[in-house]
Amino acid sequence: MSERLSISPSTQVCAVIGNPVAHSLSPAIHNAGYRHLGLDFVYVAHRVEDVESALAGMRALENFRGLSVTIPHKIEVMNYVDEIEAVDRAIGSINTVVRDKDRLIGLGTDGPGALKALTDAGTQLNGKTVLMLGAGGAARAIAHTLAMKTKIDQLILLDIDDAMREELSEDLKAGTAITVRSELMNNDTLADAMKVADVIVHCTPVGMHPNVDDSLIPVELFRPCQVVFDAVYTPLETKLLKNAASCGLTIISGVEMFINQAVLQFERFTGKDAPVDVMRQIVLEKLKK
Amino acid sequence: MSERLSISPSTQVCAVIGNPVAHSLSPAIHNAGYRHLGLDFVYVAHRVEDVESALAGMRALENFRGLSVTIPHKIEVMNYVDEIEAVDRAIGSINTVVRDKDRLIGLGTDGPGALKALTDAGTQLNGKTVLMLGAGGAARAIAHTLAMKTKIDQLILLDIDDAMREELSEDLKAGTAITVRSELMNNDTLADAMKVADVIVHCTPVGMHPNVDDSLIPVELFRPCQVVFDAVYTPLETKLLKNAASCGLTIISGVEMFINQAVLQFERFTGKDAPVDVMRQIVLEKLKK
Repeated sequence: MSERLSISPSTQVCAVIGNPVAHSLSPAIHNAGYRHLGLDFVYVAHRVEDVESALAGMRALENFRGLSVTIPHKIEVMNYVDEIEAVDRAIGSINTVVRDKDRLIGLGTDGPGALKALTDAGTQLNGKTVLMLGAGGAARAIAHTLAMKTKIDQLILLDIDDAMREELSEDLKAGTAITVRSELMNNDTLADAMKVADVIVHCTPVGMHPNVDDSLIPVELFRPCQVVFDAVYTPLETKLLKNAASCGLTIISGVEMFINQAVLQFERFTGKDAPVDVMRQIVLEKLKK
Repeated sequence: MSERLSISPSTQVCAVIGNPVAHSLSPAIHNAGYRHLGLDFVYVAHRVEDVESALAGMRALENFRGLSVTIPHKIEVMNYVDEIEAVDRAIGSINTVVRDKDRLIGLGTDGPGALKALTDAGTQLNGKTVLMLGAGGAARAIAHTLAMKTKIDQLILLDIDDAMREELSEDLKAGTAITVRSELMNNDTLADAMKVADVIVHCTPVGMHPNVDDSLIPVELFRPCQVVFDAVYTPLETKLLKNAASCGLTIISGVEMFINQAVLQFERFTGKDAPVDVMRQIVLEKLKK
């Protein structure tokens, strides 16, 4: 459960801030990477309510190199950094703050982490139709990343929450060149979308522990050659992924997105290539406990 | 040069803040103690210019348990804590900040660290005459601690800086019941003071590396049964202490004060008895390099 690290007066400090953070896997993941590469870094966890003061502290405490930012601070923290990339401004939240000399740079690695999970699994995206289920924070990050960093043909967006879905749809249309078809999710719209979707990206909480027998997609809707990505990673293989696998489809667990968002943060914090396999192994060990 | 520690999401963080901190021994000392006792703590170093924001950050970043505060921030930091003990307000500087629930408590461990070094060496203080050379920060801390925590008979205060000496003398007279004799330091006042001093406390930089052959006290002034404490600890045995030892006097190196100030911080930060010998060994190893 613990990592062993070297500490010196020049040790660079990174931390996850959020509320709660008591069960965060981030210290284990990042410290395993530092240890593997012999980097003079340490990564800790701070529960935070006052985000503004936490960021002021990060500025003032030299050697404080980077922050992972988690719920509920991913939106508010944007107010306290000096620079945010266009894609992250469009997404409307960030999960990473990194010091660059005397400036704090904010960015998101959730969307790029999901995209890396898709491409690492060999998923073809150019010219394809992506069905996205859900319009919350993860969906916003992944949809904008797909819209701005790939050449997908069309995004079909389904959600039971009309307001959130419409907001994401409008933001995508206003900020990117992507073709979006946005519909209220029900049995009919889901069945129609499944008939044309090449890649399914599931971003709702359905199927998450403890409701591990739930899945939004009836198994009879799957078609050969579809790729199914589930942002949920507890359990590692959701009912959705099990069903898809039983139909012979390519499946990608949300744990790959989770690992990749940490990997991309690690590389921003340290400037080194992350030891991805070491970091993956730690995550899988922790999640299997 | 490095310590190996365990990190978890509940790891408590302590740090030294100052400017510079690149050569601070504090991370090595404290981390050695945590490791020896198996405590879920880590201690890092942050160079800081903006003390107010650093303290705001400490408040906001839960798990941030304690700060060691060093030059040049020992006075300014007093403005940003919620509570300071009377003795430390009188001294006018603190070297320690510890979180107590949602409050930050400021305190000094330099004076108590010096007092512990004296008593650990068996020095009798009740009814004795103490000669203090110097009136700077260390002198202020030690003089107030002796005045408020012991029953010494008289403090003779000598310094070449009239204004600093008079200020310390007036503060001691106003804030404590001690008898103070304060004089400009010269050959005559020093010789006179040495005739009656039981304990000599040296708090000037004279004899500090690289000027290791300097000593304020001519060897012929030493008298049997005197105890000589030198706040300087680079070198571990100053010319002053060597001369005193050659006359058969009891000598106490400033390194004991340095170790003790860290020991007392450690105990405030962790609530545990410090492994003093482990911490001393680390300091001596580092200083002998």
